[in-house]
Amino acid sequence: MYRNRTCGELTMSHVGQEVLLSGWVQRQRIMGGMTFIDLRDRYGITQLVFNMETDAALCEKANNLGREFVIQVSGKVAERINKNKNIPTGDIEIIVSSLTILNESEVPPFLIESDTDGSEELRLTYRYLDIRRPELRDRLVKRALIIRAVREYLDSKDFLEVETPNLIKSTPEGARDFLVPSRLVHGSFYALPQSPQILKQLLMVAGMDRYYQIVKCFRDEDFRGDRQPEFSQIDCEMSFVHQEDIFETFGGMVQHVFKKILNYELSEIPRLKYDDALRLYGSDKPDLRFACPIVELNATLPKSEFGVFNNAIAGGGLVAGLNAKGCATYTRKQFDELTEFVKASHRGLGGLVNIRFNEDGTVKSSVDKFYTEEQLREIGQAFGAEKGDLLLIAADKTSKVRKSLGDLRLELAKRNNWIKPGTWSVLWVVDFPLFEKDEESGEITFAHHPFCSPHPEDLQYFDTEPTRVRAQTYDMVMNGNEILSGSIRIHQRDIQEKVFKNLGLSEEEREKKFGFLLTAFKYGAPPHGGCAFGLDRLVMLMAGGETIRDVIAFPKTSGGRDLMMDAPTPVEKKQLDELGIALNNE
Amino acid sequence: MYRNRTCGELTMSHVGQEVLLSGWVQRQRIMGGMTFIDLRDRYGITQLVFNMETDAALCEKANNLGREFVIQVSGKVAERINKNKNIPTGDIEIIVSSLTILNESEVPPFLIESDTDGSEELRLTYRYLDIRRPELRDRLVKRALIIRAVREYLDSKDFLEVETPNLIKSTPEGARDFLVPSRLVHGSFYALPQSPQILKQLLMVAGMDRYYQIVKCFRDEDFRGDRQPEFSQIDCEMSFVHQEDIFETFGGMVQHVFKKILNYELSEIPRLKYDDALRLYGSDKPDLRFACPIVELNATLPKSEFGVFNNAIAGGGLVAGLNAKGCATYTRKQFDELTEFVKASHRGLGGLVNIRFNEDGTVKSSVDKFYTEEQLREIGQAFGAEKGDLLLIAADKTSKVRKSLGDLRLELAKRNNWIKPGTWSVLWVVDFPLFEKDEESGEITFAHHPFCSPHPEDLQYFDTEPTRVRAQTYDMVMNGNEILSGSIRIHQRDIQEKVFKNLGLSEEEREKKFGFLLTAFKYGAPPHGGCAFGLDRLVMLMAGGETIRDVIAFPKTSGGRDLMMDAPTPVEKKQLDELGIALNNE
Repeated sequence: MYRNRTCGELTMSHVGQEVLLSGWVQRQRIMGGMTFIDLRDRYGITQLVFNMETDAALCEKANNLGREFVIQVSGKVAERINKNKNIPTGDIEIIVSSLTILNESEVPPFLIESDTDGSEELRLTYRYLDIRRPELRDRLVKRALIIRAVREYLDSKDFLEVETPNLIKSTPEGARDFLVPSRLVHGSFYALPQSPQILKQLLMVAGMDRYYQIVKCFRDEDFRGDRQPEFSQIDCEMSFVHQEDIFETFGGMVQHVFKKILNYELSEIPRLKYDDALRLYGSDKPDLRFACPIVELNATLPKSEFGVFNNAIAGGGLVAGLNAKGCATYTRKQFDELTEFVKASHRGLGGLVNIRFNEDGTVKSSVDKFYTEEQLREIGQAFGAEKGDLLLIAADKTSKVRKSLGDLRLELAKRNNWIKPGTWSVLWVVDFPLFEKDEESGEITFAHHPFCSPHPEDLQYFDTEPTRVRAQTYDMVMNGNEILSGSIRIHQRDIQEKVFKNLGLSEEEREKKFGFLLTAFKYGAPPHGGCAFGLDRLVMLMAGGETIRDVIAFPKTSGGRDLMMDAPTPVEKKQLDELGIALNNE
Repeated sequence: MYRNRTCGELTMSHVGQEVLLSGWVQRQRIMGGMTFIDLRDRYGITQLVFNMETDAALCEKANNLGREFVIQVSGKVAERINKNKNIPTGDIEIIVSSLTILNESEVPPFLIESDTDGSEELRLTYRYLDIRRPELRDRLVKRALIIRAVREYLDSKDFLEVETPNLIKSTPEGARDFLVPSRLVHGSFYALPQSPQILKQLLMVAGMDRYYQIVKCFRDEDFRGDRQPEFSQIDCEMSFVHQEDIFETFGGMVQHVFKKILNYELSEIPRLKYDDALRLYGSDKPDLRFACPIVELNATLPKSEFGVFNNAIAGGGLVAGLNAKGCATYTRKQFDELTEFVKASHRGLGGLVNIRFNEDGTVKSSVDKFYTEEQLREIGQAFGAEKGDLLLIAADKTSKVRKSLGDLRLELAKRNNWIKPGTWSVLWVVDFPLFEKDEESGEITFAHHPFCSPHPEDLQYFDTEPTRVRAQTYDMVMNGNEILSGSIRIHQRDIQEKVFKNLGLSEEEREKKFGFLLTAFKYGAPPHGGCAFGLDRLVMLMAGGETIRDVIAFPKTSGGRDLMMDAPTPVEKKQLDELGIALNNE
């Protein structure tokens, strides 16, 4: 036996007991004739004591231990004189009577402490050492507990876990497939699933009624932002449901998980229409931990000769702004920074108009030439402006104004600490459009994926005004992150064909890519719908971390490399020959 | 709302209630003025009743339904006159007051009944229809429940679920890797994991202490027998354990799952040494639901001139046999069939000697020329032979005799129905050899995998007699199937290097393939061990089915094809170009 207790469980109630512990040497302090060692395992840290007077040989052995040595000790639990209130085992220590070195350790390449000195690259290379640090360890533990709570809830609701295959057919759904060459059929390839979307729909056709799976998905995309080539989804599907059933079920799930993991009572999850989200917050994933909505001014602007505003309105654009509460004292430099922020190329505004409601009761603006103080106050009313407030107003094409003000809103919150730690904003965004028109090519594409069901009452616009058709599609947004996306699916073959047609798929393409789904819909497909949670992001929000790499045991870099294993790598020519493929000469 | 009840829950206690049900039309009987429909969902079948007298239009609508139509009905629960004791809802029926057709169905390509008329190929093509059949549905449900019970147990023992990556480094461990070309690094490849073996060991180095994952594994092997290119493992690893801890933990897990799923009390799981398993049952995965051990005769054979026996012994071979209880009356034809069985090329015996202990007290044999009746009786004693028994004896090289008699033992059990349905044989097979010598090349290879720890007391033979070194390796065998394999792992860098050297890996190969593991072992790797259950096989044994395809939602054929999706398939040249690969001209 290596141990009969862990390093996280001994307290005053164990004083006097003989125990056997195993773990890693976290820290060692040699003080006069005494040596103290912090012994660490997954469960915690326990202090070991060695005394030169009692057993010089044993104490000498302890003195010679290095950081991260793996040791086994037996000894007696004793009350500590200097208690450590910061850890659960801080009341006790172990008077060690025997010590065995189970494995030695070289000096680790970085400090295995909360405050480490290792770069992320070094820590990814030695990921197994980084996981020993309490931050990463605790996040992986919390990840497991979150998954456990999710399963507990879904199991209780009669969802069945069904595993779907990873070697499937290549049917590009939007992103690029990872391909796997087939050795038995040269020239043929499997694809790794971008998601089990079609397979879970077929499970509904199969009558499985309620399905879930915590499943790896694969997308060979260029890595922008916080993406991984493989990531985990909580993938769910239900038969015989309307949107309301989905909201109830998965709202309930998030409430359950919050209660279980954070002991936080999440109230009923509010809904926001997609159109309203864009209009009020300039984003389909608004962070509502603070208010600061966008205020549209087209209808209420006082008459003036100010060309920027007038032209925007005349051109079908938008004049709108934000009320930066309490920011009237912003310096010229601060205001210039905000202007640069909205002028960045991916936002592309020409500038910002500001109106300052000073503490002394005066109102000043960057457009004093065009508006009287009276008129400025009138504009202020639309924002509920008070003394000390700063209004920031933009005018341009509607989508550009909304996007820029949406971003600016988040930037203001960051600069002003408007977000109170420990607060949560969770909401449903609903009524997405079914189709989108590409601004450049004018082509119609699907907004989510081609399996989303249109709103029955919008079917009338299907052929004439497709972009007016709303989809029965919903996202769940948490603190400004999309953590769930889903829809009621199409279950009627004729509507599914129509959608494919609207997307410009020829009959041959439809048959080749989705023939098996269209065939399945011939044989009694039930009404169904579902969703997928981005597990990595959900865990990141609940367990902490800056990127999803911080909540994945063995993540890849933003370039898709595994630095620890060193993958991907060249393989032997023999392996390629067996697969009937060769490298291109480039 | 589509329903407020399922088709599996209504009983006498609901009589009089108004209910709303949705499901599939399983069967329809039109009898005089009454129409009966069996409505099916995942949960069961409920009988619907329509009456021409009460509502002719409604009854007409019901008459026009086809098999597998998806419908919604509302109506009142009523007591049935002709109760059906075979189903939980057999006491009641629904007097339908309204009927909505949710989706129509063409006539399915095969009968969706227990006793179907569809070939396996047809049913794999329309897998979503096959899953509607109660057999497959129930197995998938049971699979989910088994997984749930497994997690419940492991969660209670502080195991943490940790997801390991699927895009890893190609380090052939015995089988062939599936490769995934990297688009970002042309000429480089990821591999799909054959198992998370090294990753879970690194999680132990990382201090995660107890890990599990129900995980897909991938092996690009030629498909022999009941194999799938992707399959599921219950993958587990523990730190600070000896073999005893593993036996207790995972023996306990199987007991828990048996109790939960089958309500079967599995007694403590016995152990059998690898050497004894081969000696007594000719197999390292013996089925002990019946006895019939192999009896070795080398030491006890009476003196005779029978060359076959004498030569085998003189050549270092084995004379051994089985007692086929009660088979003395086998006909010449039956006996010839058994002889052919052991002469099959993969067994390769020259023939079988038989000794019959007839009911009339006489003893007859195929070697009467060489042995007196007295001598035959003496041989019989070694087998505990009684009146009515048939002894079947073989002589050849030891491994051939054992293998053939092991197979023959199973064949006899099948022919004689020695295995009582509902009985279970679960055992640990222990003390496997660490290395094996290839009979043809004479090369030393590992018996399990190169990470298994040698028995400490056998380290002395490491350099001189490597095949004598036992490994701390164990299998769990259930009804003659290996369902778990595992070992205490090597955690010392020097021993791991020695094993790699014994396997003939050069320093360069060791570094290239396993360098990251060897590096990890420098930094305080704890003693650890674990195992992996073959989930598909475990479910097959517990839930029924002839092959693992019968317990997998979307399996592949023995040729690695997915007939439903039609995968693998050729892909567009553009996709290959992006990956920097081309097809070989063959």
